[in-house]
Amino acid sequence: MNYKGRITHGGYVSKLDNVTPEHGVTNQILANLGAVFYVRTNQPQTLMHLDSGNNVNGFSKNPFNLLLSSGGSSSGEGAISGFGGSAIGVGSDIGGSIRAPAAYSGSIGLRPSSKRISGLGAISSGAGQESVPAVIGPLTRSVDDVDLWMDAYINEGKPWELDGTLIHMPWRKVDKPNPADLTIAVIRDDGLVRVSPPVRRALNETVEKLRAAGVKIVEFTPPNTKLAYETVHKMYTCDGNYMQRELLSASGEPLTKLTKWSLNYGEGARDFPASENRKLNYIRDGLRQEYTEYLVKNKVDFILSPAYNNVAPHSEEVYNWSYTSLFNILDLPTLVIQSGVFQDPNVDKWTEEDLKYKYRSPLEQLENENYHPDEFIGAPVGLQLSGRRYFDEEVVAAGKAIVDVLGVDLFKH
Amino acid sequence: MNYKGRITHGGYVSKLDNVTPEHGVTNQILANLGAVFYVRTNQPQTLMHLDSGNNVNGFSKNPFNLLLSSGGSSSGEGAISGFGGSAIGVGSDIGGSIRAPAAYSGSIGLRPSSKRISGLGAISSGAGQESVPAVIGPLTRSVDDVDLWMDAYINEGKPWELDGTLIHMPWRKVDKPNPADLTIAVIRDDGLVRVSPPVRRALNETVEKLRAAGVKIVEFTPPNTKLAYETVHKMYTCDGNYMQRELLSASGEPLTKLTKWSLNYGEGARDFPASENRKLNYIRDGLRQEYTEYLVKNKVDFILSPAYNNVAPHSEEVYNWSYTSLFNILDLPTLVIQSGVFQDPNVDKWTEEDLKYKYRSPLEQLENENYHPDEFIGAPVGLQLSGRRYFDEEVVAAGKAIVDVLGVDLFKH
Repeated sequence: MNYKGRITHGGYVSKLDNVTPEHGVTNQILANLGAVFYVRTNQPQTLMHLDSGNNVNGFSKNPFNLLLSSGGSSSGEGAISGFGGSAIGVGSDIGGSIRAPAAYSGSIGLRPSSKRISGLGAISSGAGQESVPAVIGPLTRSVDDVDLWMDAYINEGKPWELDGTLIHMPWRKVDKPNPADLTIAVIRDDGLVRVSPPVRRALNETVEKLRAAGVKIVEFTPPNTKLAYETVHKMYTCDGNYMQRELLSASGEPLTKLTKWSLNYGEGARDFPASENRKLNYIRDGLRQEYTEYLVKNKVDFILSPAYNNVAPHSEEVYNWSYTSLFNILDLPTLVIQSGVFQDPNVDKWTEEDLKYKYRSPLEQLENENYHPDEFIGAPVGLQLSGRRYFDEEVVAAGKAIVDVLGVDLFKH
Repeated sequence: MNYKGRITHGGYVSKLDNVTPEHGVTNQILANLGAVFYVRTNQPQTLMHLDSGNNVNGFSKNPFNLLLSSGGSSSGEGAISGFGGSAIGVGSDIGGSIRAPAAYSGSIGLRPSSKRISGLGAISSGAGQESVPAVIGPLTRSVDDVDLWMDAYINEGKPWELDGTLIHMPWRKVDKPNPADLTIAVIRDDGLVRVSPPVRRALNETVEKLRAAGVKIVEFTPPNTKLAYETVHKMYTCDGNYMQRELLSASGEPLTKLTKWSLNYGEGARDFPASENRKLNYIRDGLRQEYTEYLVKNKVDFILSPAYNNVAPHSEEVYNWSYTSLFNILDLPTLVIQSGVFQDPNVDKWTEEDLKYKYRSPLEQLENENYHPDEFIGAPVGLQLSGRRYFDEEVVAAGKAIVDVLGVDLFKH
């Protein structure tokens, strides 16, 4: 996001000379609201990794375990919020890039529904890509601060007056619900990659606390996750990575390991015909319909799910983002909160039964075999809370109620 | 739009056997609200003409002059509302298909902002096409009925519960404004096709009445209309007409004259690479930004413009839709109201000066040379009122105030 008079390189070497005379829209709105900017944080090359790492700034570390990644692509923003170096940060999210760093680094992050917060005036490989929209949202240490940020930004900032692509939709005041009035569907496994022991434990403990508080819990096996994952990957790259190649080749900078990985999503360098891009959109709309019908017909208010199949990974060893990207293709507002659970090497081990498990894919094997209990000590477990599309306010309000139930106060960490 | 148990062919011969067991979403919502359905009206082959005409039902006529077209693509719906054969009708609009028939046939029509009204469960060549979204909206004989329809459909129908692609955005109550508080920008010429004498006269008379009522009038030369027109045409066909060809070739039906015309929009049969489709979207977003900035910075509330460069044309002789499609690519809510002016062959003649005019394009020449005063007798002139994106409610409220000023009551026709 352009910050006037300063370099905005977006992780690309070719943009090291990009200094604009004006702020990007969101920075301008925040400046108008009295924000005090004091640091720009790290992000990965191409923005398409749940990790940091670029040829300008290198890697950022996890504040809970310096051997682990802070996640990405809002890499440093998750970390700096998590360790209390910043009151509120701003990130972007097209596959999990707000939620993964929030989850990994012990902070709170909201991926709002699309077109409520402006991304205008930023370096992006996704210009004109609307099959799976990138969104901007806040990273904080409390859900109240998410609410404060969204309220002030939208209702006072009136972003639709500054960005002609946004929706005119004020931020509604929604009261914190009574847990006993909530029905929450829980995803324990997305059918693609099994979660590691600390995530499983955090889900179990969270569900038990919610149930004890009166929440109605429904077990939910999310449908068509493989189709969703394959489709969203094709959407990311269906311009044959045209824009990424423009941004990368302008300098000739070396590609990082995870850039090579992500440039091969979908069909890599194949520039799809528009007719096939439309078919992908049609598949996406069918998925949105299927999930909407599930939520409405079953009177489910929210979905609770892992943010990733593991706690914070090692840098350059995060390959799967099926748990987060599902909510990008569905465009459901999704809040990451902290479960209060931290990885404990004495407890969070694969069981005997786990070790007999038959992997469903090489991706799952790669991810699961990366988990060794003694390598992730102290990593926090964040979870996702998703609601219906454009019911962002309800998600934030319920997030407050759930944090109360869990008794997790990040200001005390 | 599918009507359960009945044929829904959408103007395509290949769909003559399409009978679904369920209503399309909008028909279901209207049924739930107590609507009495009694007739399905005519539409053109491919839906891409501002005219009727297909191989199943032929042409529908203009209720004010049977030698003229009722417009299209919501062809019969404009006519039946205009002559009082229906209380409220429903149409769709991707280039002017609600507004042209409303304007030509003496009725009122609203093209809402996108994703407020459901198009799910309809025959469409545009599945997955989101560069320039098709929208659904009402055709009526009064602006109050537009308000009634939108209010009931959205607030009671809750369409976002039935269609996962829609926005959760209730219909707001907005009071009819005082004309003296309004600033309206007037487009008298879009830089592409000069308007014919009756349209010019209607604009002049309308502006004078509004000015007399205290409205602040600003002359507005809309920027980049050629770019907008070329871009929107490429967007319509950038799948190389893949879906249209699927729907048409399945029966081998003959193509009508205007189908051949519209299949050649943009680059016709060329299936654009996704990277080029994204560039078109990027151009579109730039246009939206430019018009938003104009409206906001100049404190302009609404734009008044012709709905077409002429009154209702002869069937198969409507080639230009630059005046309506501009608001499709901009996605601005646009209401067609009646000026109260009807073509008068004794008054609405080209002047001596008009006859010296140098055409700016073959399209303009084709359209302007089609105007002969004695061939359009009694045709009504409808005008467009556009507002800011997702300020549909304000457009409808202002439409009521303007109709009051003009003193046009269609129930008395």
